[in-house]
Amino acid sequence: MSEFRWDPLKATWVITANHRAREPRDFFLDRQKIQTSACPFCPGHEGKTPAEVFALRQPGNPANGPGWQVRVVPNKFPLLRIEGELNRRADGHYEVMQGIGAHEVVIETPDHERAMADFSVTEITQVLQAYRARLLDLRRDTRFRYLQIFKNHGFEAGAPLPHAHSQIMAVPITPPTTKVELNLCRDYFRANDCCLICDLNAQELNDGRRVVYDDGRFLVVAPYASCFPFELRLFPQRHGHDFALQDDAELEACATALRNVLRRLRNLLRDPPFNFILHTAPPMQPRPGHPDYWTSLPFDYHWHIELVPRLSRIAGFEWGSGFFINLMPPEDAARFLRGTDPDGSL
Amino acid sequence: MSEFRWDPLKATWVITANHRAREPRDFFLDRQKIQTSACPFCPGHEGKTPAEVFALRQPGNPANGPGWQVRVVPNKFPLLRIEGELNRRADGHYEVMQGIGAHEVVIETPDHERAMADFSVTEITQVLQAYRARLLDLRRDTRFRYLQIFKNHGFEAGAPLPHAHSQIMAVPITPPTTKVELNLCRDYFRANDCCLICDLNAQELNDGRRVVYDDGRFLVVAPYASCFPFELRLFPQRHGHDFALQDDAELEACATALRNVLRRLRNLLRDPPFNFILHTAPPMQPRPGHPDYWTSLPFDYHWHIELVPRLSRIAGFEWGSGFFINLMPPEDAARFLRGTDPDGSL
Repeated sequence: MSEFRWDPLKATWVITANHRAREPRDFFLDRQKIQTSACPFCPGHEGKTPAEVFALRQPGNPANGPGWQVRVVPNKFPLLRIEGELNRRADGHYEVMQGIGAHEVVIETPDHERAMADFSVTEITQVLQAYRARLLDLRRDTRFRYLQIFKNHGFEAGAPLPHAHSQIMAVPITPPTTKVELNLCRDYFRANDCCLICDLNAQELNDGRRVVYDDGRFLVVAPYASCFPFELRLFPQRHGHDFALQDDAELEACATALRNVLRRLRNLLRDPPFNFILHTAPPMQPRPGHPDYWTSLPFDYHWHIELVPRLSRIAGFEWGSGFFINLMPPEDAARFLRGTDPDGSL
Repeated sequence: MSEFRWDPLKATWVITANHRAREPRDFFLDRQKIQTSACPFCPGHEGKTPAEVFALRQPGNPANGPGWQVRVVPNKFPLLRIEGELNRRADGHYEVMQGIGAHEVVIETPDHERAMADFSVTEITQVLQAYRARLLDLRRDTRFRYLQIFKNHGFEAGAPLPHAHSQIMAVPITPPTTKVELNLCRDYFRANDCCLICDLNAQELNDGRRVVYDDGRFLVVAPYASCFPFELRLFPQRHGHDFALQDDAELEACATALRNVLRRLRNLLRDPPFNFILHTAPPMQPRPGHPDYWTSLPFDYHWHIELVPRLSRIAGFEWGSGFFINLMPPEDAARFLRGTDPDGSL
């Protein structure tokens, strides 16, 4: 069983997982990459994963067998478990609670060899539809304060299995990074009666130097204060706080933009390792008087996707200070990514 | 010239360096490691660095020539520059200021081949004396709100040059991570009339499960909510807020503990890449009415060193949420690091 542990000196929560037997040698950097001769995500190996919780299938193909296009399963080695009580309590000066939550894997394609940049718009749309379906299902469990969807691509970005997949983590406390964003959007809306992200996007469109992609429906920018080289953010240009409430047309527009920039990154930056993270409003939980009541009215938020190539490292200065260092100004990154149509088909 | 840029969506400062000509290919992961056939940190190559600002030398050896034991020079490619004005200003919805500060390199030994774990206690003490001397000198410049001292060891920890060195960054705004710690220590002192870190250390000594080293003068623990496998913190057991005010005996006690745990890490974890960061009180700046007045009375802080082996990666979940995942419980890490006397000489 894992735990959430609170550090009273740094004000951080850490998920300490002690349920997998770990030896120090598991952390040595020369460890073997995980063998994938029998990939658990490939068709025909459905029995190697826990039973699926969602799938897009051809009619007539029963669950947990082949014939699927996108398949969502619980993680076989979950960092957070759905059974049990939080049991939040003090441990001397520290604080601890059980690792309650959910941890699912979205297998994005039956094809072991294809990365998301190879997908058609329809195939990426289907992955986004799977995200939406899982968000709508998981938020019925009111223990979960946030549902974090993310994708790790490449070994250096934290993906030991090469078969294309993303992950969903349901967590019992609002993540600190999410909380900062939600609060900033709320404060801005209160002060200005309009959305912070809508206003930032208007400035970016007007300026143009950091715009990588703009088709009138989605906007992709290299953020003004990018923490990492070639970092990108994908914004719907129509305000919406909740990814799970978007219709198929909006998801297809998102898939079109996502495919475009994924192909730019792959073709222009030699298939870099990357992470992307879906930022969306937390589940609605109107509970007046509750300390997290503020999460109950997130209409002032604006969902988006953050895309971070992992081409630089966090070293002592960044870790110690909380300042980031980026040696690639976002204006230069955007010019480079914008300049060349990667394959003539975009 | 670099800039500090403010992200209004994430409330983070990023140092965006646009003064080094950077090509996208500089970030490709297969880039060559920096050639060190003519190491600029080796004796006889003193002319390859800017003129030294501090050195411990044998008598009779002039500055900027051989004959030194520890040498501090300005970084030849500084991320922050000492000349100029901050010029903090709005840029539409964003905020920006010039990259004013200082960026120095502490060359820890004349010997290209020796890592800090190979040093004698006396040699490590001399490095700490160099830190102290630079802190005392740099804090005379009242533009600097904080002086961050850190060491990157190994390529994966951000040290492209193998010759043992650490770095000093003087920054014009208090780093966010530092501010959180200072505020937590202040709040705790106000509420309890005693030091948070002294109380945490008492709990750790009483518990014992996370103690790696304790000689009555210094305490080394694997933190309760460690973010990374085998993370360590080194605390002086005598309360003191300011590293720069410590006497030689205290620095030698620190060097004794630091050498012990560096050798444990090297011998038991196969010389892992690591960062260490000195956490100490900011310079005294009593300016009542100033928004940073709270930094003027930091006696409630307790200086220490944070030591982070880099054996795991920050992936999409950690970056997106601000939660960390640690698969090595600190109790297990401490037991492993405590269990074996690495070379019988400790």
